[in-house]
Amino acid sequence: MSELLGVAVLGAGHMGADHVRRLDGVVSGARVAAVADPDAERAKEAVGGIGGVVVHTEVEAALDAPGVEAVLIASPGEAHEEALLAAFARGLPVLCEKPMVPDSAGALRVVEAEARLGRRLAQIGFMRRYDAEYRRLKSLLDGGRLGRPLMLHCVHRNVSSPPHFTSAMLVNSSVSHEIDAARWLLGQELTAVTVLRPRPSAGAPAGLSDPQFVLFETEGGAVVDVEVFVNCGFGYEVRCEAVCEAGSARIGQAHTMVVTAAGGAREEVPQDYLVRFADAYDREVQSWVDATRRGRVTGPGTWDGYAASAVAEAGVRALETGARTPVDLAPRPALPTSSWNKRPRNT
Amino acid sequence: MSELLGVAVLGAGHMGADHVRRLDGVVSGARVAAVADPDAERAKEAVGGIGGVVVHTEVEAALDAPGVEAVLIASPGEAHEEALLAAFARGLPVLCEKPMVPDSAGALRVVEAEARLGRRLAQIGFMRRYDAEYRRLKSLLDGGRLGRPLMLHCVHRNVSSPPHFTSAMLVNSSVSHEIDAARWLLGQELTAVTVLRPRPSAGAPAGLSDPQFVLFETEGGAVVDVEVFVNCGFGYEVRCEAVCEAGSARIGQAHTMVVTAAGGAREEVPQDYLVRFADAYDREVQSWVDATRRGRVTGPGTWDGYAASAVAEAGVRALETGARTPVDLAPRPALPTSSWNKRPRNT
Amino acid sequence: MSELLGVAVLGAGHMGADHVRRLDGVVSGARVAAVADPDAERAKEAVGGIGGVVVHTEVEAALDAPGVEAVLIASPGEAHEEALLAAFARGLPVLCEKPMVPDSAGALRVVEAEARLGRRLAQIGFMRRYDAEYRRLKSLLDGGRLGRPLMLHCVHRNVSSPPHFTSAMLVNSSVSHEIDAARWLLGQELTAVTVLRPRPSAGAPAGLSDPQFVLFETEGGAVVDVEVFVNCGFGYEVRCEAVCEAGSARIGQAHTMVVTAAGGAREEVPQDYLVRFADAYDREVQSWVDATRRGRVTGPGTWDGYAASAVAEAGVRALETGARTPVDLAPRPALPTSSWNKRPRNT
Amino acid sequence: MSELLGVAVLGAGHMGADHVRRLDGVVSGARVAAVADPDAERAKEAVGGIGGVVVHTEVEAALDAPGVEAVLIASPGEAHEEALLAAFARGLPVLCEKPMVPDSAGALRVVEAEARLGRRLAQIGFMRRYDAEYRRLKSLLDGGRLGRPLMLHCVHRNVSSPPHFTSAMLVNSSVSHEIDAARWLLGQELTAVTVLRPRPSAGAPAGLSDPQFVLFETEGGAVVDVEVFVNCGFGYEVRCEAVCEAGSARIGQAHTMVVTAAGGAREEVPQDYLVRFADAYDREVQSWVDATRRGRVTGPGTWDGYAASAVAEAGVRALETGARTPVDLAPRPALPTSSWNKRPRNT
Repeated sequence: MSELLGVAVLGAGHMGADHVRRLDGVVSGARVAAVADPDAERAKEAVGGIGGVVVHTEVEAALDAPGVEAVLIASPGEAHEEALLAAFARGLPVLCEKPMVPDSAGALRVVEAEARLGRRLAQIGFMRRYDAEYRRLKSLLDGGRLGRPLMLHCVHRNVSSPPHFTSAMLVNSSVSHEIDAARWLLGQELTAVTVLRPRPSAGAPAGLSDPQFVLFETEGGAVVDVEVFVNCGFGYEVRCEAVCEAGSARIGQAHTMVVTAAGGAREEVPQDYLVRFADAYDREVQSWVDATRRGRVTGPGTWDGYAASAVAEAGVRALETGARTPVDLAPRPALPTSSWNKRPRNT
Repeated sequence: MSELLGVAVLGAGHMGADHVRRLDGVVSGARVAAVADPDAERAKEAVGGIGGVVVHTEVEAALDAPGVEAVLIASPGEAHEEALLAAFARGLPVLCEKPMVPDSAGALRVVEAEARLGRRLAQIGFMRRYDAEYRRLKSLLDGGRLGRPLMLHCVHRNVSSPPHFTSAMLVNSSVSHEIDAARWLLGQELTAVTVLRPRPSAGAPAGLSDPQFVLFETEGGAVVDVEVFVNCGFGYEVRCEAVCEAGSARIGQAHTMVVTAAGGAREEVPQDYLVRFADAYDREVQSWVDATRRGRVTGPGTWDGYAASAVAEAGVRALETGARTPVDLAPRPALPTSSWNKRPRNT
Repeated sequence: MSELLGVAVLGAGHMGADHVRRLDGVVSGARVAAVADPDAERAKEAVGGIGGVVVHTEVEAALDAPGVEAVLIASPGEAHEEALLAAFARGLPVLCEKPMVPDSAGALRVVEAEARLGRRLAQIGFMRRYDAEYRRLKSLLDGGRLGRPLMLHCVHRNVSSPPHFTSAMLVNSSVSHEIDAARWLLGQELTAVTVLRPRPSAGAPAGLSDPQFVLFETEGGAVVDVEVFVNCGFGYEVRCEAVCEAGSARIGQAHTMVVTAAGGAREEVPQDYLVRFADAYDREVQSWVDATRRGRVTGPGTWDGYAASAVAEAGVRALETGARTPVDLAPRPALPTSSWNKRPRNT
Repeated sequence: MSELLGVAVLGAGHMGADHVRRLDGVVSGARVAAVADPDAERAKEAVGGIGGVVVHTEVEAALDAPGVEAVLIASPGEAHEEALLAAFARGLPVLCEKPMVPDSAGALRVVEAEARLGRRLAQIGFMRRYDAEYRRLKSLLDGGRLGRPLMLHCVHRNVSSPPHFTSAMLVNSSVSHEIDAARWLLGQELTAVTVLRPRPSAGAPAGLSDPQFVLFETEGGAVVDVEVFVNCGFGYEVRCEAVCEAGSARIGQAHTMVVTAAGGAREEVPQDYLVRFADAYDREVQSWVDATRRGRVTGPGTWDGYAASAVAEAGVRALETGARTPVDLAPRPALPTSSWNKRPRNT
């Protein structure tokens, strides 16, 4: 299997450029075949010195470029629905960054479009599922040694929020990671959400409700609580404790080096998610490339993308009303959770 | 100051007997002068070989016994109101185990009785305020280095609950410790409470809503969440993380010895609160003896006892209704938070 | 047993004054009966407001003062031999700070004097044996769960050394704690010692060989290594790892509060031994008072004091010569390791 | 740079097969061009389903196979000298597993052969230099924030030793990793070695001196101590603490998940080096492939391979004699530590 998978990368911003670098220099078995961005200069910069990559300003042109066998969507969320449907129309396997589609109605259209194809084509970029710690936790929970999970206590902290970050975005952008992680770890849908607003931190921009405390209930009767604090000032900290019937397991407190000097024993805290989850991104893309070359889709799918959008929407309503808000999910179309492509690449 | 403070211990059950032992053999500056219990045999057993201790079956007789200068109340909660009022009537300083008085109406009567005396006589047995970890956390928060506290995340786990433990007791017995600790750490009253009931653990007795997830709001806009899980099966685990504007601090994860053997690196978890808080009990009683010999009351007082009862009552209503429940505190009588006794012992 | 043990404290320096405070206000069952120091002013300062304490400038006068039933020796090491022999002559039980007697010849004379008495009178102040962490480690090793101990890795660090601290004192003052701890933990005598001198730290005073790396061999074939670094600059850090046939156990890495703020997650390191071992000192003296009131001696004895001096002397020779140096212990006189006093106090 | 580097893998044992898998499926930018092993069946098994790989039984045939542009040597150590010289003769860049050459005389011949070429061709497989924790420690030490390093305390433990493991192999196979790591972390040569033999563990095979305690001195006056214990029974544990003038830093105590259940809070310990250092191996080979494609050699070189062999030889003598043994290094030939290849691949 020494031939390289040709990938079109849509979007050449921060995340897209990072994926171009990853596909070229980190991941085995793939090559960048095309890059598309409305800003051609930005696309060229992302390509850098990589040979044989054609740059496009239109999504469709990139998808139709010679050698393109798969698509990685890293454009802004509002552009995802169109890009996904275009990829589906061509039968191209896709890795789509989160949010799959920001509004749940659009997300549902994507689910239905894939259902009509009768086979899975899309993997959604919930990279925490590829983080070593989360995988160990998932494996521990699935193994059953600790009994049934009853509660998840989650913490999600950023040094500071980007400009124009809104109170709603603490829920639908930051907490969306915990929404997917909770669904995946528990294997359950989230059914209701409540948001508490502590008095905002002096370190938060005026008008931003930061931190927030978000509570989810699940179809199996578990409770998931999330502290989200995007201007905590000191680091990027993601923690999760799963409390089960016979024990609890905590991740996100990893340390690799303890430095004792004046002031005490200290462990460094990573400053951003690209550091904390660097390995997870690498594994995610490697895993997608490996599966795609074998004609398979193995990661989180469009239903996961839709559910995350629907829960986040309910969360924003809960934030605005202060009330416990049920989550209404559409009926789930019959999609195999992990299926063979009908048309493998090599035939 | 070499004369020993003569203490009457009311109640010779598990806790009372432990205090008798502590006053005799651990604490400096005190001696057991009398022990009262309706069951005289039990009182005698608690006294053991300690010389010069008279045993009584009536509270009043014990308080009036020769050499009694102070009272330690360790009888069941329902007997506390009468015992406190009897001590007040005699001007005797008191250390009263929690709950001060289980129902908030009775607790308020005690507050008012002490207010009428015009001086403080009673210290309530919230021993966590004397735990080294809690004191370091309090000192850190008061120092202001981390800015204003925004949230407290608390965990309170027991191996198993005693027989006849009810769902309400998770709130008004177990969580009452966190109620006082939160009020003390934040220096704020709690204003509302919500209780979530995850599906009960298979390890809990039938009918017991265990675990519960209890949320408090404070007058200053902070949020306090408490996981209470009294049949967790593996140990007595009390943790608290204070999330502030400029950092967070966690206690309750102390380790003193790491054993690496087949199966991994392991730290022991204490199995009950008498182990975890042994030093706190010693410091509490020593501190009370020291202050009393100097004619002072320095620890948590009757208002703290009342507030804990009032919040716990609201919590039980919240548990029963599933709704967010405001806490209605009576107006606080003018009581000095730390005052000299009007009638010091030695004059 | 409500009568208080009358204790004469010899030496009113830093350590003596601390013991006076401890006997008066912390320990149960004892009172300060006399204080002796060549500097009468210093002795008066140590007594402070404690009533009924007579101050002396002569050891013998203090021992003969009315109400003196036991002696706590906290004078400089050179004065210990005379004080111990004076206490023995009067049949008074003694708690003697370390070093028992700095030179091993003098130490042996004390051992022999006690042997001639035919009963134990002296406990030597190796307070680590009363530290909670060390006791857990001792208990784990004695329990046998990890098999036979093969190695001890020890670290002993101080912020900075006092003036006039010499290279030899790293061995015979600092490491003497590890010498006793190793003998006690392993239940074996140390048979040889080697000292390596890394290039001195820039933070050490000119001429001081700091840090040093000290290696002991034991009669049972174990190896004990000690890093001693008395100008490490950042804190007082005492660690010990026992490596056994079936696992290892580490102490001295306790943490009670983790503070995460700008710069990382941090645990405080205590700055001196009175903080780190405060509880151990309290327990040591309480334990000595309790045993003495029962007419017993239960702690480390004169043979332990002698062995520590003899090993430390060999260590200083090893430091000076750079060579592996055997430890020559005198034959051990027949002394019961824990015996009843022939003349209990109350008869 | 989308053309893949063709690599001949010499040796198809455990390690060679692992590298074949890594080059094919993990590392970006390389492909397996040939595999050589005296046992052709074993070579075929290692290749598995990878297309286009020719299998050889002779080293020279593999090196001369079409498409071979670089060599990865994973055959037994005794075969390394011949393989390295054959690669040098063809101007092929090499990644050679440790030990480079087991005996120091042979190792020196390799150094001299490369020196005669006038350019670097070989990287030696000291994979710890690519471990994230070791790199952070190296970076901290080089940054100078903690001052000059004075001591390294190292621990190297294996669950159990393979059959036929000898006492000498604890030094020249196990500790050889610490020898390289110490040289690299400190940037200093090791000048003397002493080996202490504690009484062997009951868990070690009869006749094996396990554990051992190995002490190195460096040209800069630092001390490096290594506990090596290859039948510790519970896991693969590699730790290192660097003690510097202004603080200490510890690695190897990383935890990623803390599980609290009956028995305490537990962290898993990896069971073997392929788990603990999996990422290091991946990074090592990726880094070598990247550098090679750019015509460079950037990792540890033949001098590092030689020095490790020379120090290990002195260590084995020290083990046998019980005496402090100086290390005699040959004069170092003039080799650039990181140089451009004279003949880049693409010209």
